[in-house]
Amino acid sequence: MTDASDPIPDPTALDPQIAGLLKRDEHGLVAAVVQQHDTGDVLMVGWMDDEALRRTLGEGRVTFWSRSRQEYWRKGDTSGHVQWVKAVRLDCDGDALLVSVDQVGAACHTGDRTCFDARVLPATVGAPDPDPDPTPPAS
Amino acid sequence: MTDASDPIPDPTALDPQIAGLLKRDEHGLVAAVVQQHDTGDVLMVGWMDDEALRRTLGEGRVTFWSRSRQEYWRKGDTSGHVQWVKAVRLDCDGDALLVSVDQVGAACHTGDRTCFDARVLPATVGAPDPDPDPTPPAS
Repeated sequence: MTDASDPIPDPTALDPQIAGLLKRDEHGLVAAVVQQHDTGDVLMVGWMDDEALRRTLGEGRVTFWSRSRQEYWRKGDTSGHVQWVKAVRLDCDGDALLVSVDQVGAACHTGDRTCFDARVLPATVGAPDPDPDPTPPAS
Repeated sequence: MTDASDPIPDPTALDPQIAGLLKRDEHGLVAAVVQQHDTGDVLMVGWMDDEALRRTLGEGRVTFWSRSRQEYWRKGDTSGHVQWVKAVRLDCDGDALLVSVDQVGAACHTGDRTCFDARVLPATVGAPDPDPDPTPPAS
């Protein structure tokens, strides 16, 4: 893991200033939300450790850490469904990234455009109470 | 925790059919990405266990599990910055939710509209190679 206090620059390590902002889980990971830059569609959620983030920031392509396979995977290397990086943001408490991309083809391994297309859960739609005493229109 | 095989309906538990779709981490949590329904802005990422999801699906308001405080928090109860639920989706592998909301005021505790406003990381922008041999315009 990167030591944010290390004074020796290391081109193979994540910038210590960035590494110092991350609040990793016990596996050294932060969540990475991937969003299509122009439509705003949330495409998928993956996971990154310091090295996956370093590669993502430096390569113009998105690399994740696969929790199930315990290995790095650069999106699109096998599927062709590349994610071209547009911007990367870190949230206020350092445990989530927002990666803006241009997605080639389907983001989901099922062939769906996004990983959220297939399962809509039954939810009560919320709304503020309507104004209980609206001003009547001027007559 | 909910037992998806439990045959007795329990109104205080998450629907077993939904619970059976979740792939929780070792703390019983899934990531919850919250998105403004009309602009597409990703507002924040929180965490939900079965009970937080049950409340979110049933109340029209978003409830998270706070990992730092180890308690439920319904967004807006103290700040007034309510998240009205529009739709809830589960991703293909069951470890992330996408909650579409109408956000009242700031989503971030810092006062920013989103938790991703403040920290843009330096990233190389990626792009496919330009067509190496474009067809010349007809003359």
